[in-house]
Amino acid sequence: MPPAEISQIYSDTVQQVLDLTGIFVFAVAGALMAVRKNFDVIGIVLLAEVTALGGGVIRDLIIGAVPPAAFTDIGYFSTPLAAAAVVFFLHPQVERISGAIDVFDAAGLGLFCVTGTAKAFAYGLGPVQAAALGVTTAVGGGAIRDVLAREIPMLLRWDREIYTVPALLGAGLVAVLIETDTFNAVTATFAALFAFGFRVLAIWRGWRAPRAWRRNSAVFEHYE
Amino acid sequence: MPPAEISQIYSDTVQQVLDLTGIFVFAVAGALMAVRKNFDVIGIVLLAEVTALGGGVIRDLIIGAVPPAAFTDIGYFSTPLAAAAVVFFLHPQVERISGAIDVFDAAGLGLFCVTGTAKAFAYGLGPVQAAALGVTTAVGGGAIRDVLAREIPMLLRWDREIYTVPALLGAGLVAVLIETDTFNAVTATFAALFAFGFRVLAIWRGWRAPRAWRRNSAVFEHYE
Amino acid sequence: MPPAEISQIYSDTVQQVLDLTGIFVFAVAGALMAVRKNFDVIGIVLLAEVTALGGGVIRDLIIGAVPPAAFTDIGYFSTPLAAAAVVFFLHPQVERISGAIDVFDAAGLGLFCVTGTAKAFAYGLGPVQAAALGVTTAVGGGAIRDVLAREIPMLLRWDREIYTVPALLGAGLVAVLIETDTFNAVTATFAALFAFGFRVLAIWRGWRAPRAWRRNSAVFEHYE
Repeated sequence: MPPAEISQIYSDTVQQVLDLTGIFVFAVAGALMAVRKNFDVIGIVLLAEVTALGGGVIRDLIIGAVPPAAFTDIGYFSTPLAAAAVVFFLHPQVERISGAIDVFDAAGLGLFCVTGTAKAFAYGLGPVQAAALGVTTAVGGGAIRDVLAREIPMLLRWDREIYTVPALLGAGLVAVLIETDTFNAVTATFAALFAFGFRVLAIWRGWRAPRAWRRNSAVFEHYE
Repeated sequence: MPPAEISQIYSDTVQQVLDLTGIFVFAVAGALMAVRKNFDVIGIVLLAEVTALGGGVIRDLIIGAVPPAAFTDIGYFSTPLAAAAVVFFLHPQVERISGAIDVFDAAGLGLFCVTGTAKAFAYGLGPVQAAALGVTTAVGGGAIRDVLAREIPMLLRWDREIYTVPALLGAGLVAVLIETDTFNAVTATFAALFAFGFRVLAIWRGWRAPRAWRRNSAVFEHYE
Repeated sequence: MPPAEISQIYSDTVQQVLDLTGIFVFAVAGALMAVRKNFDVIGIVLLAEVTALGGGVIRDLIIGAVPPAAFTDIGYFSTPLAAAAVVFFLHPQVERISGAIDVFDAAGLGLFCVTGTAKAFAYGLGPVQAAALGVTTAVGGGAIRDVLAREIPMLLRWDREIYTVPALLGAGLVAVLIETDTFNAVTATFAALFAFGFRVLAIWRGWRAPRAWRRNSAVFEHYE
């Protein structure tokens, strides 16, 4: 499928719905992190905004889609405000669902690896690079959130369940779908659910990626 | 006022004077942070440069003004060098004014929320998005400074006086001025002084923003 | 030499070889840091990628070369994967060379200050700004690596040997070579080796840059 057709069939309808959903859930994850870190209401709004829009802004700058959607479409900008308001007033209820940050973050991860890959492809990148940029879109906002809140980014920690692998698989699946002309609203949603489900399963079952070969040798113990 | 006119009347004269003033005061704030953190002379220069130019570079990348002014106008690049030299030799005198970092930072905040909003508007962004980008310009350099120096960014901390609100009000005021055709050198300077004064007042009177609803409940105490 | 000629003579041959070599050695430095920090295999790959490509992506965004080379040339993307694989399996051997991270990082620093300056010049920046962007290219990837791994960036620390000065001298040398029409594969390689050698010498001999004037006064002791 030529790039022009993807953006024609896909972008106006599915892209925006998936994008806004991803923005909302990422914003909730960012706002909850701000509450946990004891930031004030402005910190909650800002962390919601950068978590939700950071990955997409990086993607748009890299593919040359300037100004990024976050700064042209008022819906992109105001959705995190709504998410921040929900968290501000209802966070004890939201928090009650154990591991709420992780679940919302997983939903954003699933949605953004799909929309990021599709938009990069529509702007003329090759399938491998489009998938790489899809992963960047998916993990970028959360990485900025973690850096600003002075956490080690979730994507780098060995003591956490695998984080980037679901995004890699989701983005790779989208690249294959596009290459085989089978990318549409249904398969896009499936790919997002697949990456989301994989991540939630990884959290639930405690799946971890291996560390470096012979990493457990005594020589390195003191780096802990 | 159409975007073209704003850039015609405004950019060549007021924009550059306000921009360079903002760059100088932000650079002083960055250099003072580097002295406090015990960085060497190169660290002082680098932290002065990123604090002063970081917000504007982000703004220019987002609106598509590449290469950013920081990399085309030699004055933008050399002003932080001058500020770093001043701090390097005179920092005990500069520090004597208690809270010097905060005052210089407040001046940069006031100037950049005005120039950032105006430049974004001149490049075709809508008023709300232009104001959002003005705030980004104002808080971006300081956020990069704090991340590099491993401080929690001032804009997120609840135990600090409100930081982003003055920039929001200044940027919003500029958007209103532009929309009502009353934006000029005088009103632009007023908006910058207003945001600066609000921030200094907030520091002086210890104004803080509220934290999340029922945030003081015992359940969350252990997050401190 | 006009910009067009530089890119004609230089970019297709020398630029890519030097770029890929720089990417490889920076990726090794990033992967070794990930091993030290006890990150998992995904963290090793990601830290290798951002260390190797971060500086170049920033450079390309600033000069308007979008999509950046990292997202169009598959070699740029896959080289860090190879470096990460080498470190994953052979890190005890690589680590045995004491200070391996620093040596690989120095090699990347030398190569990127040359390629960064040349590419910026080819895109029309003035000599001073091109050199500034060369330094940004050289130190950018390492700075992102250090921020993600929660280290204070090497370029800012006073208790480390001088880091940015070799990149500044290498980039300045390239600007002079270009201005005097003597920039070619041989002189480019010399400039890279000069910056690399200077950095290694600085580590070996413990050269440090001065801190702020009268920084040792008792007043500031408590900032340590």
